[in-house]
Amino acid sequence: MNRITKLFGIQYPVIQGGMIWCSGWELASAVSNAGGLGLIGSGSMNPDILREHIQKCRKATSKPFGVNIPLIFSHAEEFINIVVDEKVPVVFTSAGNPAKYTSHLKETGIKVVHVIANKKSAIKCQDSGVDAIVAEGFEAGGHNGREETTTMVLIPMITQAVDIPVIAAGGIATGKAMFAAMALGAEGVQIGSRFVATHESSAHKNFKDMVLQAGDGDTLLTLKSLIAVRLLKNNFFNRVFEKEKAGALPEEMLKILGEGRSKLGMFDGDTDEGELEIGQVSAIINEQKSASEVINEIINEFNDTKEILKNTGF
Amino acid sequence: MNRITKLFGIQYPVIQGGMIWCSGWELASAVSNAGGLGLIGSGSMNPDILREHIQKCRKATSKPFGVNIPLIFSHAEEFINIVVDEKVPVVFTSAGNPAKYTSHLKETGIKVVHVIANKKSAIKCQDSGVDAIVAEGFEAGGHNGREETTTMVLIPMITQAVDIPVIAAGGIATGKAMFAAMALGAEGVQIGSRFVATHESSAHKNFKDMVLQAGDGDTLLTLKSLIAVRLLKNNFFNRVFEKEKAGALPEEMLKILGEGRSKLGMFDGDTDEGELEIGQVSAIINEQKSASEVINEIINEFNDTKEILKNTGF
Repeated sequence: MNRITKLFGIQYPVIQGGMIWCSGWELASAVSNAGGLGLIGSGSMNPDILREHIQKCRKATSKPFGVNIPLIFSHAEEFINIVVDEKVPVVFTSAGNPAKYTSHLKETGIKVVHVIANKKSAIKCQDSGVDAIVAEGFEAGGHNGREETTTMVLIPMITQAVDIPVIAAGGIATGKAMFAAMALGAEGVQIGSRFVATHESSAHKNFKDMVLQAGDGDTLLTLKSLIAVRLLKNNFFNRVFEKEKAGALPEEMLKILGEGRSKLGMFDGDTDEGELEIGQVSAIINEQKSASEVINEIINEFNDTKEILKNTGF
Repeated sequence: MNRITKLFGIQYPVIQGGMIWCSGWELASAVSNAGGLGLIGSGSMNPDILREHIQKCRKATSKPFGVNIPLIFSHAEEFINIVVDEKVPVVFTSAGNPAKYTSHLKETGIKVVHVIANKKSAIKCQDSGVDAIVAEGFEAGGHNGREETTTMVLIPMITQAVDIPVIAAGGIATGKAMFAAMALGAEGVQIGSRFVATHESSAHKNFKDMVLQAGDGDTLLTLKSLIAVRLLKNNFFNRVFEKEKAGALPEEMLKILGEGRSKLGMFDGDTDEGELEIGQVSAIINEQKSASEVINEIINEFNDTKEILKNTGF
């Protein structure tokens, strides 16, 4: 037990990150049933779809689960109304001002967590009354902070700066890494990439296969002139990378990006021309498993690591 | 005791990174006297200066110490002859082919370690017979790998790929981070930035002061079109950054860089126009201390972290 397991009423402080196109009710409920906290990633949904996923998730698990809402998203306000209406126990907000909806959500009894990547935002989160923070390092998949601070540096920096519990994200797919994150001061971990490559994830098979095959150096933070995002290297990535290196302006980059790239890649399975968001840690993810196998392996390895390190003394 | 302390004959598996302009005999001997392994950074020395530093280091400590030799450096071969001649117990090579001098050095009884930032190089190192590897993550100061793999991801990847002991570098300045690195599979840590801000470092006071003041997001990996290097943000950095963003070619970048930038910044103390190499972890380094205070604090915090985590179970 620690502050994170108590806060959410869960067995293990392992949160499955809410990811666009990959984490619907099937994945979220499977993670919650296995003792972690599953999150529905609402960033790729419309209001009707989100409501459907919440209702299906509730039927599939009696355990707590949550919804991730990116606040810059056009549907954000409507989504906030839906999670309140549906009495979702936990909401993770990201990409926006944590002060905007936190008091409203908390008044209705919802636990609120906000995702940050730097110290200033962490302090702002604490001031706005969130229950916990996700501190996400540079190695994480998808959108990412301008400071490029890695998990190894970010977690001690954030845990020094705030008193509320900190959940580490970025580069974590194993029990060893979970143990490392807790040594750095985190009280929980948010894991994305490892859950993309599970049976219950709604990622397209082609995308899952690419994640399993990805190795050292196969992702890179790109699109820094718009919003920095970590992508798997493919044709689309290469085009973006070369253009950006040649000094293309944001408006040119927007044109290349176009619309629906992430759906094309992650959900429809066009791994050449789609946008494939995944973390660096995909380099050590080599096998598709069920969400409960993933959770059990992580917890077992966490406990093994603790035993091994008990005897390390200088 | 572990494979790293045995290999070098030292008390703590804490290696002070060999850094240009910052780590001469005073710092190296202070670290070795405190139970770690001090390294003379030869990359900013000429042959006579290197020999002088080795001889002074030997007078200042009876404990093992080493020399770091960047193999792309013009004096590399001469430096190899000097360390053999002076019977330096340990040599760390970096930035070049580990196969080139390893057998020669090992035949004379010298322990050889090579610094890498990706899996392919790690395997090449093991094949070339080095005694250990430093795996250095993206968050580290100075020159850095093209893959941008962070310590959190790199260490498990490298320890899975090789059997020889792995020393973690990048983002490590505290006992918590040392414990985290060992949870990830490392058997030792190499620490740079924390030792720049010690009394015994030969960094200019102005540079040390900037390191102590540095915060979140104050360093960035830049000069990617030449050799990627992590720098503290200053006037010089800003000029380089803007030029690179605008798509400048390598030859233009070389012209802006000019010569002697790192000496100007780190040794002569021109913190506006000099090149200031430091790691992200400078964000949590706030006080100048002696090398032995740093080592003692790290080991105490390592042991405290172990005690705290003993009671963390799920």
